Amino acid sequence: MEKIQTPLQVIDKAKCQANIQGMIQKAASSKAVLRPHFKTHQSLEVGSWFREAGVDRIAVSSVSMAEFFARDGWKDIMIAFPVNLREIDQINQLARMLRLGLLVSCPGVIEMLGKLLDSPADIYFKVDVGTHRTGFDPASYSAINRELEELGRYPMMQFRGFVAHAGHTYQAASREQIISDYYNGTQLLTDLREHFSKEHPGIIISWGDTPSCSVMPSFRGIDEIRPGNFVFYDLMQRNLGVCTLEEIAMVVSAPVVALHPERNEVVVYAGAVHLSKEQLRLPEGKTIYGMMVYMDDNGTWKIPAEEVFMVRMSQEHGVLRIPENSMLQLQIGQLLGIIPVHSCLAADLLWQKVIV
Amino acid sequence: MEKIQTPLQVIDKAKCQANIQGMIQKAASSKAVLRPHFKTHQSLEVGSWFREAGVDRIAVSSVSMAEFFARDGWKDIMIAFPVNLREIDQINQLARMLRLGLLVSCPGVIEMLGKLLDSPADIYFKVDVGTHRTGFDPASYSAINRELEELGRYPMMQFRGFVAHAGHTYQAASREQIISDYYNGTQLLTDLREHFSKEHPGIIISWGDTPSCSVMPSFRGIDEIRPGNFVFYDLMQRNLGVCTLEEIAMVVSAPVVALHPERNEVVVYAGAVHLSKEQLRLPEGKTIYGMMVYMDDNGTWKIPAEEVFMVRMSQEHGVLRIPENSMLQLQIGQLLGIIPVHSCLAADLLWQKVIV
Repeated sequence: MEKIQTPLQVIDKAKCQANIQGMIQKAASSKAVLRPHFKTHQSLEVGSWFREAGVDRIAVSSVSMAEFFARDGWKDIMIAFPVNLREIDQINQLARMLRLGLLVSCPGVIEMLGKLLDSPADIYFKVDVGTHRTGFDPASYSAINRELEELGRYPMMQFRGFVAHAGHTYQAASREQIISDYYNGTQLLTDLREHFSKEHPGIIISWGDTPSCSVMPSFRGIDEIRPGNFVFYDLMQRNLGVCTLEEIAMVVSAPVVALHPERNEVVVYAGAVHLSKEQLRLPEGKTIYGMMVYMDDNGTWKIPAEEVFMVRMSQEHGVLRIPENSMLQLQIGQLLGIIPVHSCLAADLLWQKVIV
Repeated sequence: MEKIQTPLQVIDKAKCQANIQGMIQKAASSKAVLRPHFKTHQSLEVGSWFREAGVDRIAVSSVSMAEFFARDGWKDIMIAFPVNLREIDQINQLARMLRLGLLVSCPGVIEMLGKLLDSPADIYFKVDVGTHRTGFDPASYSAINRELEELGRYPMMQFRGFVAHAGHTYQAASREQIISDYYNGTQLLTDLREHFSKEHPGIIISWGDTPSCSVMPSFRGIDEIRPGNFVFYDLMQRNLGVCTLEEIAMVVSAPVVALHPERNEVVVYAGAVHLSKEQLRLPEGKTIYGMMVYMDDNGTWKIPAEEVFMVRMSQEHGVLRIPENSMLQLQIGQLLGIIPVHSCLAADLLWQKVIV
């Protein structure tokens, strides 16, 4: 392995595989199927670790990501994003190649999609369980029913079930809040399943979001879970109480390029184009962009005893605030690592990776 | 040209070239050299528009970006980022191929770099004119002098001058504040030039940042300017009063994927992996991630009479807030455009582009 010179994704394979195994076992013990969301890593290699562990279906967040994993042999892919009708040609192509799941998240789309789809696809209704990003209102039985009747007119569409992503768990104040969001949200889905199951037997309910899938000990009554971020975790999840620092499986390498002891600051080569501008507000009110770890030349990292945060960033610069009277003795040219606030966005930015 | 299907960079060539011409003429009328910062567009094609307009030297923000533009024939490149010693092999390679400028931004680096550099390079001292990101304290004449003496020991290093980037103009409350930041910052540089010019004749001073280079009518006494963002501009610059909406030369295409009239919201396919998570706080306190424009299938865009903002975003979703009682009649599958808050980060994310 070459000496690391620039900001790259550094993945700890053992931690990553432990995260994968943990979720697989928890899903299996609840008889829920794990359909991991691959938007977090977007990596064929990390995907292969899931495959070796027995996973055979995945979720992605774009048509191009579905094409990417289809070329790698994945045969059951849900595009967990409201269907983009402008990509109908690519969608039809995918539907011919593999078992394709599509999401419909508001009234009116079924009719448009039905007229354009020329190969069989699984159709899921996205349900808004409280995030208010998109999805059907779970109380709008009659609107959902109208769409299901419309769907029945198109032989290429197979209604499969209801999916939800509880994105609001990312704003939860505590693990208890995440658990409560899980119970409230999944109840809405099971109610829908019950309501429509007579006319539509075999409805599955599919539940997303890493916070609740990590915190819940089991998923009774849920057919499928679709967490993504858990493969790496990150500072945001750690801040939510969802993972420990030690479970985080990806950091970004960051060479030291300037020392400013007069203000206890160190500048690293790792900025918004490597980590993203995702920020986190710590309980004490400070806004941060990442947390420092020590790293050797090959990428192996170590969590320092004292927490050191990235407090400012620009396109390529990151500024670390070193605690006063700290014993940290950093050098120009030294390699550090930064635990990203949001690993999905950092992984999207950094296609070059090192596995340690 | 194909119908646009997904989030892409859409560049208005005429607006972009007008921005380029305006800055070239303003620099020329002050006898300052324009060394545009190419980190904004990172595009060979946009670069060629500068070249056709007579520009022959550029700034970039990484070694890899220097290599990218070197392969396209650029022969005078400043890497306007504190030198990353871990990339010394690539730096030496570039120094053999072209006129290379390197930045040193704190004491101690000259000695390390001097021992590693095996080809001639121009050395610039980065000066902190108030942003407090990195750079020498402009009052630390003795520290700067020590570094200049050290530099004299290494024949491969040619001291060229002082550079500054007034990043704090991005937080300016008014155009008057930007102008004041310009005068204060450039005064610090001209004082340094005067102080060191006897021993180091021919020192140049190089000034960055789009806000001040756009707002100032001339650059008397400045040898070189290095703005970057002005090639596209963006919502942040418009909010600072630095450009108009009409001068913004790049937007991100965004298909409509869900309609939620019950809460006056529309979901588009354009999120953090397309626009970045850069946010802007409007004067009335609202946080936004972009502004909507109408777009036809080929990418030509039109600014609506009523301002419509992206008020939430996730990895691929953007949520637009439609004003109540608005006459906007948006359709599923319709193409819109989003003016990014920060065009440099959006351009970095979207390598696919359409020129209109």
